[in-house]
Amino acid sequence: MPVYRILVEYDGSHFHGWQIQPGKATVQGALESAVHVACREHARIVGSGRTDAGVHARGQVAHLQLRRSVDPHRLKRSLNGILGGTVAVLDVAEAEDCFHARYDARLRRYHYYVTTEPRVLDRHVRWHVMPEPDFENMNAASAHFVGTHNFDAFCRTQSSTVNRRCAVRTACWQPEHRPGDWYFRVEADRFLHGMVRTMVGTLIEIGHGKRLVDSISELLLTGDRRTGGPAAPAHALVLEAVEY
Amino acid sequence: MPVYRILVEYDGSHFHGWQIQPGKATVQGALESAVHVACREHARIVGSGRTDAGVHARGQVAHLQLRRSVDPHRLKRSLNGILGGTVAVLDVAEAEDCFHARYDARLRRYHYYVTTEPRVLDRHVRWHVMPEPDFENMNAASAHFVGTHNFDAFCRTQSSTVNRRCAVRTACWQPEHRPGDWYFRVEADRFLHGMVRTMVGTLIEIGHGKRLVDSISELLLTGDRRTGGPAAPAHALVLEAVEY
Repeated sequence: MPVYRILVEYDGSHFHGWQIQPGKATVQGALESAVHVACREHARIVGSGRTDAGVHARGQVAHLQLRRSVDPHRLKRSLNGILGGTVAVLDVAEAEDCFHARYDARLRRYHYYVTTEPRVLDRHVRWHVMPEPDFENMNAASAHFVGTHNFDAFCRTQSSTVNRRCAVRTACWQPEHRPGDWYFRVEADRFLHGMVRTMVGTLIEIGHGKRLVDSISELLLTGDRRTGGPAAPAHALVLEAVEY
Repeated sequence: MPVYRILVEYDGSHFHGWQIQPGKATVQGALESAVHVACREHARIVGSGRTDAGVHARGQVAHLQLRRSVDPHRLKRSLNGILGGTVAVLDVAEAEDCFHARYDARLRRYHYYVTTEPRVLDRHVRWHVMPEPDFENMNAASAHFVGTHNFDAFCRTQSSTVNRRCAVRTACWQPEHRPGDWYFRVEADRFLHGMVRTMVGTLIEIGHGKRLVDSISELLLTGDRRTGGPAAPAHALVLEAVEY
């Protein structure tokens, strides 16, 4: 049975997250319905990982297995015709039989977009942070995330995940073209529930002088969620890419 | 009486264009109401030019004259507090008494955003063009716009403007970071009603091989609106900057 790898973009504000839930609009649910209409068969869509309600993706990867072979270009076109404007399939490619979008993913990349200025046209994907935080301090603090650590302090407490070790390759703030616009780029082998948003919330507290730059190392060592910062809003977080 | 120059961003999809109209939400109307609340006086907001319903701006410039002096930073903050998310004042600065946002403007810059791929997160500011047009031909055709010409063929026929000569400094298509994304950058001393959208609609017809590359020169010479192309949709057009 042929396996297909798909690349997906979605506007998270229209969905209760990635994962299928009865009676709720989810990205996985929308894709499975579209595949059902396009291919006339039920196929499970397996994503590289879940994204929370409100979180967007420009580079989510998923796989599906069909009973019959299909032309990838034609499948892409039919799915986009069915999906409407809030989810789009950017690419469909035939994959190895053993390809697994979740287990084979080696690196996930998220960007978190902020601005210190009022913004209109990208307000749906950017958090307006006031007053202006100290991005230099935030970059110094972000460097402490790089490496393999236990991210207990940055995981939603209700999460049932036992292994909370993540290998972070990149964590830094970069200025964008428009003055006042910055994004936090973070890459890791895996992310825990709410992890990027808690990292950003904690870093912004550092940028506002409410927390010391060194507090990140301490949080990674003690692993106490209660001493971590608040989660930043979901609408400014984008899953940009998954590497295999 | 002090004069202030303001820089404005807005989401055109929420407004019936720039110009105030009774009973309709317009950008000028929203700004005048906000100034009334913030400064407790009625002041006319004069923009560099009108934008049509649905057209956005990241760099609209306007001026207003107040009876009393105000602190520009404080005025910016109050206006943004009142305006909500669909209009933002990016800057307020004191101007010369004789400054006029419309008469003193020397150059307007518009960008028109298209894509040949399905897009989600920027679907509100980008036109999905299918099939893929030939951007090389479109760039060759765009070059004919540069210079001073009579733009009769690219003006809405109901427009009452008598002088239809515009001096175009730049007109070209540029690829963006994501494959399939392009924008048309056009700069001129002035633009007529519907002009950029008709230029884009005509160029896309050239890109689709429905029209010859040379047809632009012919349209500029004959000035016959009936032989011009259709207007491209408003939602992908952004007034990026005005120079003085």
